[in-house]
Order: sequence, then C-alpha cells, then structure tokens
Amino acid sequence: MPRTLHLALSAYGVGGPGQHGLWKDQRVPKNASVDIDYYIRQAQTAEAALFDAYFIVDSQFINASYPAHYLNRLEPLTLLSAVATHTRSIGLVGTASSTYNSPFNLARRFASLDHISHGRAGWNVVTSFDTGTSRNYGLDEHLDYPTRYGRAEEAVDVVRGLWDSYEDDAFPADVDRGVFLDPSKLHALDHAGEHFRVAGPLNLARSPQGQPVIFQAGVSEEGRTLAARVAEGIYAPGGTLAESQAYYRDIKDRAAALGRDPDHVVILVGAGPVVASTDKAAHRLSRDIFEADNDFDRKLGFLGRSFGSHDFTPYDLDAPFPDVAHLAERSGRTRGLEIVRQARDENLTLRQVVETVSEYTPSPFTGAPDTVADALEHWFAAGAADGYNLRFRTHEDLERFAADVVPLLQKRGVFRTEYAGDTLRANLGLPVPANRHTLARESAAR
Amino acid sequence: MPRTLHLALSAYGVGGPGQHGLWKDQRVPKNASVDIDYYIRQAQTAEAALFDAYFIVDSQFINASYPAHYLNRLEPLTLLSAVATHTRSIGLVGTASSTYNSPFNLARRFASLDHISHGRAGWNVVTSFDTGTSRNYGLDEHLDYPTRYGRAEEAVDVVRGLWDSYEDDAFPADVDRGVFLDPSKLHALDHAGEHFRVAGPLNLARSPQGQPVIFQAGVSEEGRTLAARVAEGIYAPGGTLAESQAYYRDIKDRAAALGRDPDHVVILVGAGPVVASTDKAAHRLSRDIFEADNDFDRKLGFLGRSFGSHDFTPYDLDAPFPDVAHLAERSGRTRGLEIVRQARDENLTLRQVVETVSEYTPSPFTGAPDTVADALEHWFAAGAADGYNLRFRTHEDLERFAADVVPLLQKRGVFRTEYAGDTLRANLGLPVPANRHTLARESAAR
Repeated sequence: MPRTLHLALSAYGVGGPGQHGLWKDQRVPKNASVDIDYYIRQAQTAEAALFDAYFIVDSQFINASYPAHYLNRLEPLTLLSAVATHTRSIGLVGTASSTYNSPFNLARRFASLDHISHGRAGWNVVTSFDTGTSRNYGLDEHLDYPTRYGRAEEAVDVVRGLWDSYEDDAFPADVDRGVFLDPSKLHALDHAGEHFRVAGPLNLARSPQGQPVIFQAGVSEEGRTLAARVAEGIYAPGGTLAESQAYYRDIKDRAAALGRDPDHVVILVGAGPVVASTDKAAHRLSRDIFEADNDFDRKLGFLGRSFGSHDFTPYDLDAPFPDVAHLAERSGRTRGLEIVRQARDENLTLRQVVETVSEYTPSPFTGAPDTVADALEHWFAAGAADGYNLRFRTHEDLERFAADVVPLLQKRGVFRTEYAGDTLRANLGLPVPANRHTLARESAAR
Repeated sequence: MPRTLHLALSAYGVGGPGQHGLWKDQRVPKNASVDIDYYIRQAQTAEAALFDAYFIVDSQFINASYPAHYLNRLEPLTLLSAVATHTRSIGLVGTASSTYNSPFNLARRFASLDHISHGRAGWNVVTSFDTGTSRNYGLDEHLDYPTRYGRAEEAVDVVRGLWDSYEDDAFPADVDRGVFLDPSKLHALDHAGEHFRVAGPLNLARSPQGQPVIFQAGVSEEGRTLAARVAEGIYAPGGTLAESQAYYRDIKDRAAALGRDPDHVVILVGAGPVVASTDKAAHRLSRDIFEADNDFDRKLGFLGRSFGSHDFTPYDLDAPFPDVAHLAERSGRTRGLEIVRQARDENLTLRQVVETVSEYTPSPFTGAPDTVADALEHWFAAGAADGYNLRFRTHEDLERFAADVVPLLQKRGVFRTEYAGDTLRANLGLPVPANRHTLARESAAR
C-alpha cells in the first residue's frame, strides 16, 4: 500500500494562532469558543473530508490582554466527549497538562473518552509553559523546565500503566459461573517514582484502542527526547521546508535509536493553508488577514508568549531589548532564546524585535487549490511531514479546503478515499499496544 | 403556586447500591457501565418523564472484590458531557471529589459542562471516604475527616469564586469599537486559604446558570454543616420516615440559622421504588431481588464499605466483632460507628453483624403504582423530602415508574406536567446567583 498522508484539524472558536482578530469576522459567532454546536459542526465537516483527527489545544492561564479565544474556552475533554457522540470515525485529541493534573485523573478521563468514542481518543501531553498557570494551582513558582519534563515523562508512564490495569478479557461476565470479573486479570500498578506514587488499579476496562494515542509537540531538547520516547503522534512546529525536514529526520532518528519503529511516530506539521481561486488572490487574502489581525499591541502581546507570557508593556520600546533570557529558559521556549540571540547579535530595540518577530511571512500552503495540494504533497514526499495539523480561519475556509484541495490529494493517491477503520489508531496506522500483563503471562508460558 | 416535588434519577450501569447481582439480568447489557448509549437512553427516558436531574455517582478506588458496577465505569464529567447534547431540559449532576481534584480544574470542567448543556450542570461534592483512594493520588495516608471537610468547604468557595471571574456582560464583542472583552469585568480571585492558593481568573465566561448547582450528601456532623452552608441540592440518606423527617428538619434549620432561605436547599431522599401490578407482587419481587443479589460474601463486602472499604475476609466470623471503630472514624462513616455501638451493646460476632446489617428491609416505596405514589406524596407532605433521588434496577423498571407512577403524581398535583425551564436552577426553583463583583459594584454605586 502506498504511503498516504494524515490530516488533523486544529479547532478554535473565535481565533487560533495568527487569527487574533477573527472574532470581528461576521461569519464567526461571537461565542463560538464556548458554542458546542460550532465544534460539532467543525468535527463533522472534517470527518466528511476523512481527516484523521480533531484536535483541541488548551491553556489554563489568562490575563485581560490575551487574544479573544484564549479568554473564554471550553475544557478540552468535556468538549470532545460531546463531539464524540456526533461523529463516528474521526480521532479526538485533547490537550491536558501533565504538570497540573494527577495521572490517575488523566488516565480515567482519556480512557473514558476512548470508551465513549469507541476508540478515537488521543492525549496531547503538554507541560504548560505559561508561568502564570502555577498560581492557579497553588504554586508560587512555576516548576522549572527539567522538572516539568521529568514529570511529563513519568506521568505518561503512569497513565499507560493504569490503562493496562485490566487485561482485555478481564470481564467474562459469565452468568452460569457467577463470575463477572476474572480477578487474575486485574493488576495494581504500585508505581513509586520521583514525581508520583500511584497504586491503582484504574476502575475502567481497557478501552477500544487498548490505549488512547499519545501526542506531543516537542521542540526543545527535552521536548524532542520526550516526543521520541513516548509520542505516537507529533505536532511539529512547521517553519521552512528545510527546518521541517531537519526536525522530521531528528525525531525519527531519535525514535529509532530508542528501538521504536519510526513509522509509529506520525509527524504532523502545523499549517494554516490559505486557499483562493488564484495564487495571487490567496496571497492578497493572506496579507489582508495579517494586517487586520496584527496591530502593534497584538504583536507586543504575541512576543510575550515566547517568554512564558511575559508582559512587555512596561518596557521602553526604544531601549535595547531587555534581558529576559531567563524567562525563556524557565518556560522552556526555544523561540524566546532565538529571539534573545538575534536581538543581541543585531543590536535591536524592543520595538525592532516586535516588528522582526511579527514580520509577515505567508504560509507555504497559500495559493490556488492546485498550488496548495502541490505544496502539501511535496513536503510529504520530501521527508518533512507524515501529514499536517491544519488550522483554518473560518468554517467556510475549512469547507473550501475540503471541497477543493482534498479531492486533488485523493486524485494524486496521497490521501485516503475512505477511512481505514473507526479508531484513531487504525487511521494513523498505529498498532494497538498489547497489554503488558498479558504479554508477560504469554512470555512466561513460552 | 402549590409546592411540587422534584425527581432525580441516579444512574448506574450494571448495578447500583443493593443491585450487586444486576449484571446477571439478561435485560442489562454486560458492558452497560461503559456504554454511553445506555446512559443517553436512561437520561432521555427520565427527561421524557420530566425528571429534574440525572445523577452520576463515582468512586476512585477498587479492588477485585468490588461489585460489578464499581469495577468499571465512565468518569462522570465525560459521561455527562456526552449526554448533554442528546437531552434538552434535564439537569446533569456529576460527582467529583474535592479531596483529589484541584479547584481550578473542577471549576473549569463543571463550568464547561454548564456551557455545553446550556445551563444544566450540577456538582455533587464528595470528599472520598474510601481510604484506598489516597494511594491513587500519591498519599500514603488518607486525609483525616476534618481535614477533608475543611478542604471541601474551601474548595467550594474557591470554585464559586472562579465561576464569578467574568461578570455576565464582560464580552461586548463590539466590532465597531474593536472591543472583545471589557477588562473591568474580569476579576482575579487571589485566594490564599488554609488548603488552597488560587490566583485565577478562570478562562471561561459565566455559564448560563450563573453558577452550576452545588449538591452534597452530608450525614455526619461535619457533612451536615457543609451541606447546610453550601449545598443547594441534598441527597438525603433515606431510612425510615421519622429519620428522614428529623434529617430534613435539621438541615433546613441549620440553613436558616446560617441566614439562607431553606427553600433554596432542595432535599432529595434516596429511594429505590419497586413497582408491580399489586402490592403483594411488588413485595415478592423485592424479596426475590434481595435474595438473588446478596450472598454472604457480598454482605461481608458491603459491611466493609461502612469502614472505608475495609476488608473483613481475614477475620474469624464467629469471634466478637473486631475493634474497627477507628476505621469508621477515619473515613467519617456514621453508619460504621452505629454498627460498632450495636455490636458492643448486643455482644455480636462478625457473622451476626453481617446478617443484622444486611437484613432485608423493603423500600418504603414498594407496591402497586397507587401505593408507591401514596408513599411518595406522603413523605413529601410530611416534611421528610422535597423530592427523591430514585434508582431503578433496569431500564424497564424506570419506564414502568414513568408510565405508571408519574401520571398519578401529576394527577394529584404534586409533580410538574411540563418543565419550568431548560436550566437545572429553573426546575429546582433555585435563584441564579448574582455575580459577586457586579453586586459589589452596584452596592458601591448606591
């Protein structure tokens, strides 16, 4: 079977990254971020276009200067659970922080979603870079970067351990023998590690996928290590083709070096396609959107996100860029460190940094449908991506992509014409992990 | 308007309290506890019968000796979120522990459910009596009873504070002025208490009910104090009519003494009606079910639940009842302390205690439809209940109650013939709480 690409839809209400003025668009309901019917319609449209997954990002800290969508949004797991019963085949990937949730709760909620969706749940593991988040969870200081990543890795191990609490055939429910559970197939975890002690077992049967799919978006050294070790789906940062190829190669090599099959690490490059009838019209549209969305204050706020949502408004705009490297380090923002380096090398003021960082660069997936399909196919063939995590400005833009670009990808044989199955693992080409206790038993018997 | 009673449905898959053998019933799917379609159908049937609320209990610890439904069940919030989009008017009350969840997460998840359900969410606050639960959350020792209740009270305060982060009119979303948020209507909480420090604000607008409804099931002294102070709905333990009247009076008096309107504390007595064509047939059915469900091992396991899920199997059945008062105290189980007292006063062995505790006592709501309606009306009129939290053995039993008993209650004018509104508050007759910041502003302006 020829290799085909995967598509995820990143869902936002009134605006995702680079769409901060979207709430002003008349086509978008002002309360879209908390309107469950809006999300259900998005997911159904993506499912009709045979997307692999529907993906919800998250954050847990705001201040009044944040973009519209961040200020007011549904919690990802409750959102996806509602979407689950109105869809049938599309994967449902929710973001949850391993820093501010206990593994037992995470294991329960994602396994519950996997049951409710009949095998379509995925967990996007994040460590919460926003330093303000810690103050919503009783900590004065944000956990430092290595601690957050150590905790994330251990949390994934614990959660996976809990997901294996029951073997697949643990519940014979045999009325004649009066046996509901076979107790030899229920296993406590008894985990005691550096960050967690969790006894288990989980009070939930193995879910239809065996285990929900683990997603991650590692960019830093620690992030890449974590991604290569635990992730089955990766949200890659994008950038240029060369940058994406390098990232792709690096992650696949790291996974192989850890003894994993690189094909079982599906790398999805983040992309915001802008499609119009001609290339020229698409580029004009893209530029117009950028100008409408990005006034100086918005750009200044956006810069802050590379430093753990630091507030740059009190600084003198025309003084040299302030010494904020420690903020980027603490929140683990690779981009922040790059910015500090560039500002120092080029002797930039804060104002100059803002303009440089927020410089307009069109998405490589901007153009007429054929152009966009070309680019998507090219990056895929050139070893930059196994697929894409797409974001669209409006529902109409998603519909246009589905109507005009997806059929071209299908005609070229690089995208499916029907779902491989009704679980996320089936569509991503990922194996169902064998239960560790069943494996151990079988291995002992041999 | 004459006072009318309220009905909640307590939902279980393959068996609730006193239904431990239910999984053997051919009418019940063996996987009912994790089958979302089963729950959706239950909720829709209860909604068609105009029930106020659909209620999901929870626990977070199991061992292999637990009843079938406890072993394997969906997490309440994901479950209810899926149910929300398939119902329109019935309240959705989920259980969550204030001992093992952070207030910020609780506030988000319940507010999210309130948005998704358009104003039908309720939080049943529990402190998790099962001592084993602590070991799933990194603690060697279960938090003691007063600590758990102090934490619960503070958690409710913090969650309510977070629910008021935004005033109702915080989002003008005024395109002409370019104003999405009015920042003067967004408020940090900056809570620093004995158990929690939470800065806020919550990243979610005030939900359609202003705040989800708080439920509680306080029996002990601390539980009653908490219930009287914070609960708007109470799941009362039931027992005899006289016991229920005493409990009802006590809670209403406590609430009034705290300056609350006793009508805004809705007391629902737990009841498992058994309805058949005649009283005699109903009592025979009730007895048969009890016998089928309760072998000695089951009774021994059930006894353990009054002592924080203590395992009594290692004890000599014919020796005097062991000294386990400290276990009942630690888990705060009033029932356990009563059992210890009775065992001492009457010099009982463990075996005798098991048989005494598990003695067959039919529900006071057992009989022909008229008899059951009589009893429900009588307890309601006699100051024992504002309504009932009902559990049924099978879906067919719920349907029978809806078809045969509900119309009698309606004919007598003690139950609604249509919903008062599409929010849980509207149907329970509870006010929408004013936002504290709006109140403060208005009071300062006067």
